[in-house]
Amino acid sequence: MQDLKKYAERITLEIVKYLNRLRPEILKSSSAHLIVSGGKRLRPYLLIKVAECYNVEFEKSIYAAMAVELIHNFSLIHDDIMDDDRFRHGRPTVHVAYGIPFAILAGDTLFSLAFNSLGELMVDENTRSKLYRELAHATLRLSIGQAYDMFQSSKEIYNLRLYYETIKNKTSSLFECSAVMGSILGGASKENVEKLRMIMRYAGMAFQIKDDILGVFGDPAITGKPVGNDIREGKKTLVTIYAKKKLGDLSKFVGNKNIDDSEMKAFIEELKSIGSYDYALKRAEEYSQRALSKVETLKNNELRDFLRSYIEFLVKREF
Amino acid sequence: MQDLKKYAERITLEIVKYLNRLRPEILKSSSAHLIVSGGKRLRPYLLIKVAECYNVEFEKSIYAAMAVELIHNFSLIHDDIMDDDRFRHGRPTVHVAYGIPFAILAGDTLFSLAFNSLGELMVDENTRSKLYRELAHATLRLSIGQAYDMFQSSKEIYNLRLYYETIKNKTSSLFECSAVMGSILGGASKENVEKLRMIMRYAGMAFQIKDDILGVFGDPAITGKPVGNDIREGKKTLVTIYAKKKLGDLSKFVGNKNIDDSEMKAFIEELKSIGSYDYALKRAEEYSQRALSKVETLKNNELRDFLRSYIEFLVKREF
Repeated sequence: MQDLKKYAERITLEIVKYLNRLRPEILKSSSAHLIVSGGKRLRPYLLIKVAECYNVEFEKSIYAAMAVELIHNFSLIHDDIMDDDRFRHGRPTVHVAYGIPFAILAGDTLFSLAFNSLGELMVDENTRSKLYRELAHATLRLSIGQAYDMFQSSKEIYNLRLYYETIKNKTSSLFECSAVMGSILGGASKENVEKLRMIMRYAGMAFQIKDDILGVFGDPAITGKPVGNDIREGKKTLVTIYAKKKLGDLSKFVGNKNIDDSEMKAFIEELKSIGSYDYALKRAEEYSQRALSKVETLKNNELRDFLRSYIEFLVKREF
Repeated sequence: MQDLKKYAERITLEIVKYLNRLRPEILKSSSAHLIVSGGKRLRPYLLIKVAECYNVEFEKSIYAAMAVELIHNFSLIHDDIMDDDRFRHGRPTVHVAYGIPFAILAGDTLFSLAFNSLGELMVDENTRSKLYRELAHATLRLSIGQAYDMFQSSKEIYNLRLYYETIKNKTSSLFECSAVMGSILGGASKENVEKLRMIMRYAGMAFQIKDDILGVFGDPAITGKPVGNDIREGKKTLVTIYAKKKLGDLSKFVGNKNIDDSEMKAFIEELKSIGSYDYALKRAEEYSQRALSKVETLKNNELRDFLRSYIEFLVKREF
């Protein structure tokens, strides 16, 4: 994972070059706003590295990598409008900077560009068609996941099954898609493609559980989000689902936008003391273990080594 | 065109069947809201009929036809949020019925489903890949056209070149895509595919000019939109661009949301008396003539006959 930063810079450069073609000017700047403001590029990095393990070089996979990052940013822009999140990567979100109409359009534009980007790949049409299909399926799952997420956030629903359904669709989908597309580009066997899909399904769920933990217990200075942001928005995560079981009614805190920072900090302390943090972290580790044990069944040494460190990174990160 | 209604019903039925698979329930109902409330299905009808002229039957083209109609509805749902249009087909728009978050998500879902729908076609992967590419390109042009449209609506810009750039991208794109996809499914030569693209580019522009005329001079009881809706929203069309040249400052009317119905009716009368209606209608007829003269160069008799009546319908319609 030491090369993540180097790859992230190259990926960003290529995306910016691609977006620079856009006209009119306001469509270009609003569409580029979130992407240039940061992001770890975990998904395109995964795609490129998996492809590399099958001897496909950067130049042959970059347009597919861009596609998954464009879709990721499309979904962030639209989710930020839906949740009315004001900041991301420490900068105003697109609808705060450009208004809701241009933010909707910026998201739509990135969505379109992702599919157009696949048209730029130097691959046979059979392979390209498979990639289109994977990307289309992933985007549909993003919408389904977001629908479950909003549905639970707006109601007093604390349901484990719904939570896992949400994160599998909302988060794992693009991780799966990235690894799968990388392996398709590499001409992997159907068996290995499906193995990668399941590995990244579990790893993506581990990633999201960790993300939810950081959304409550993370250091705002590092995560770039306000203290207890997810709790104020009424997001249902393992942290709050566990707390609901232990504490009963949480409506004074979860989904209450008027709570002040000191009350929020006290509530977060309570969550930790009843074991919410440990419970959620344990689940994240279980999912990452499930992913890792499947990794061991892969015969490609390079791929196995890479995925081990990648999956570890997803769960150990503090930002 | 006598069979438009029959085809429209079959297309609607198939789309509803496809949408019925969606979960959760609220995603299904919000995504279906606009589609079940009406629509002429002009684009999927075009696709299916062009394919039929190449001996491709309904069952073999329906998933491609659904794709263009899903994209059309995605763009209507998002455009209605951006323009804050409250009614369409005489029913509340999706964001009025479900709120902005679920309306954004409903649009995104139809966008995804369109690309997924192409995955259901029984065609070789080479053909499928071409269809994905066409659809991706059309969706990007929709966003570009919408950006130009919003940009002009928000400012005192009356510019013919920008207007034509807008409608070429915003309206012709999907008509082009529909005819092109129908012909690709039929295995048409590259030359004929490109001919159809140009035919529908001109025809789509004629359609939009006529639409803009109806948006000002149309009978609200037939169009389903409030009197002078486009003028209140500051939309720049041939009608207002011509009037700007003749009358100078129009800011009392164009883009003024507080104008009452009787003032609006008087302004519309004035527009007619200075020749705006005749000017715009003449341009629509010119573009349809350009399309029709290209139609005459096609060698497929059935296709030629169909396109003649289709293009005539686009310009003659009063709704």
